[in-house]
Amino acid sequence: MAIRDSSPVCVIGLGQIGGSVVKAAAEAGREVFGYVRSARTFDAARAAGFTVFGELESALKHAELRRAVIVVAVPLPATGGVFARIAAFGGSCVVTDVGSVKAPILAAAEEHGLGGRFVGGHPMAGSANSGWAAADAALFHGAAWVVSVDEAVTAAGFAEVARLALGLGAVVVPALAAEHDRAVARISHLPHLLAAVLANTGAAGGELALGLAAGSFRDGTRVAGSDPALAEAMCANNTAAVIEALDEALDALNAARTKLGLTGLPGPVVRSGRESRAAYDRIAAQRPVIAGVDLEEPDWRERLAEAGRRGAILRRL
Amino acid sequence: MAIRDSSPVCVIGLGQIGGSVVKAAAEAGREVFGYVRSARTFDAARAAGFTVFGELESALKHAELRRAVIVVAVPLPATGGVFARIAAFGGSCVVTDVGSVKAPILAAAEEHGLGGRFVGGHPMAGSANSGWAAADAALFHGAAWVVSVDEAVTAAGFAEVARLALGLGAVVVPALAAEHDRAVARISHLPHLLAAVLANTGAAGGELALGLAAGSFRDGTRVAGSDPALAEAMCANNTAAVIEALDEALDALNAARTKLGLTGLPGPVVRSGRESRAAYDRIAAQRPVIAGVDLEEPDWRERLAEAGRRGAILRRL
Repeated sequence: MAIRDSSPVCVIGLGQIGGSVVKAAAEAGREVFGYVRSARTFDAARAAGFTVFGELESALKHAELRRAVIVVAVPLPATGGVFARIAAFGGSCVVTDVGSVKAPILAAAEEHGLGGRFVGGHPMAGSANSGWAAADAALFHGAAWVVSVDEAVTAAGFAEVARLALGLGAVVVPALAAEHDRAVARISHLPHLLAAVLANTGAAGGELALGLAAGSFRDGTRVAGSDPALAEAMCANNTAAVIEALDEALDALNAARTKLGLTGLPGPVVRSGRESRAAYDRIAAQRPVIAGVDLEEPDWRERLAEAGRRGAILRRL
Repeated sequence: MAIRDSSPVCVIGLGQIGGSVVKAAAEAGREVFGYVRSARTFDAARAAGFTVFGELESALKHAELRRAVIVVAVPLPATGGVFARIAAFGGSCVVTDVGSVKAPILAAAEEHGLGGRFVGGHPMAGSANSGWAAADAALFHGAAWVVSVDEAVTAAGFAEVARLALGLGAVVVPALAAEHDRAVARISHLPHLLAAVLANTGAAGGELALGLAAGSFRDGTRVAGSDPALAEAMCANNTAAVIEALDEALDALNAARTKLGLTGLPGPVVRSGRESRAAYDRIAAQRPVIAGVDLEEPDWRERLAEAGRRGAILRRL
């Protein structure tokens, strides 16, 4: 098994995440080039000095020549189409992605025959802004970057993608696609729905209410400012897990509503919420580090998945 | 009507808000002194060079002597008791408060016979931290500070409290107590409940979920880290308005749940949420300013209440 330390990077799609991969890879001294469909972004990225192709096949050809790792960073609904074209082109480069759901993307990769060279990825980073203009070389610094350890993933592929994430300043969380999807429904997809509902309930109070809004409303609705297509794609591609998380939230809110009506107090939810937030603070402040992973061991996938389940991260490989 | 430009300030209770009033007033060059029950805070505030009394009556006596404005900044459940002691002491100083609900506090002030000298106030500021150690002279800079224009409020009292808020760096939002309470249920009390539920739903996903949590979860749960007594006091003292806001949020979430189950998409909530957040951003960026208020006009209260309803603020008096 030949694992290279640092491969060239080919980024397909130069929105906020793809653009940040390009900028961060360049800053890390990696050879990097990209493809983007939008003429405006193409011009902007070229003007900033980056190598960008205006034809997907040209980028894939260059990737093959340079033995690059291919990062598919197009919007979720467009991912399957890009996989189809990569499959049609052929080649042997490792392919990863940055999408916010992993099981449907893994299924799409396998459907298109990319299974053996595909390694799902998901950097937990991004702001309410979008597009190349919002791309930032520092976006991944300290961020968690999920790298799939599903059955089809090869050790060489995992190492390639994990090294890319580490090289861009992230830490790696190994996870199975399905477990990732259930987790992000709770901590990423549900927040979008709650933020939207909070924004609407506040706005229904008119200008007095919006004018009085301070930190708790500003923070609680920040993500409602995102491109709606993002939250909708999360829901569409992770529906069952989002419903599971939303049903739990609804049960808790209904219980609080009942308590409020009976007693004027919301019940235990506020106190348990504080404990939950403290648990998050603890894990954010100091995460267990996975040491001594040997990708030559037959059970490396299971070991890494188990470590990821405990919140552990890889800081190096 | 004699309206003074700058009265001494007597602060009862030196938690985050009361302590910030003390520090900000001192920084603004105002004469300021306080009372606090906690021996530890008493020592800390004294050590920081502030004039602090360890007996409430001593502070009230000094306030009367100095013709100070009295700022009651104790926790909500303790406010009525402090009003009773101020009433028993007598005196003639203007009394204001900083509590997060206004109608029950106005009722308590009137019940204790303080109606004619009481002017409810609510600075929309504060962090998830609490106590004197979290007090900050800059806490009110640019913050909205609600000042009551209810019927019992005198022009002199309104001017006294508005000048205090302006002097500490805030802008003044005139509002009726009941309208304030319905507004803050939406933009301050509801966010506490949603943040707690989001924190719990995330934590139920275990360490993998909490470890993957990024901006949307961190921001959406920030206020869940507050002292639970705060959110509980908000609910207990503003129950009907909190229930109204929570019921609206539940209706919206149930509708999204139904749509998700049928279509895999959450319906219009995400797009309307983005518009609502944009409306908030607009009003936060540029608020209408109330010009030419004349507190000698007989309808000054109605005029100010109407301006506040439109999201307008006073920047000077």
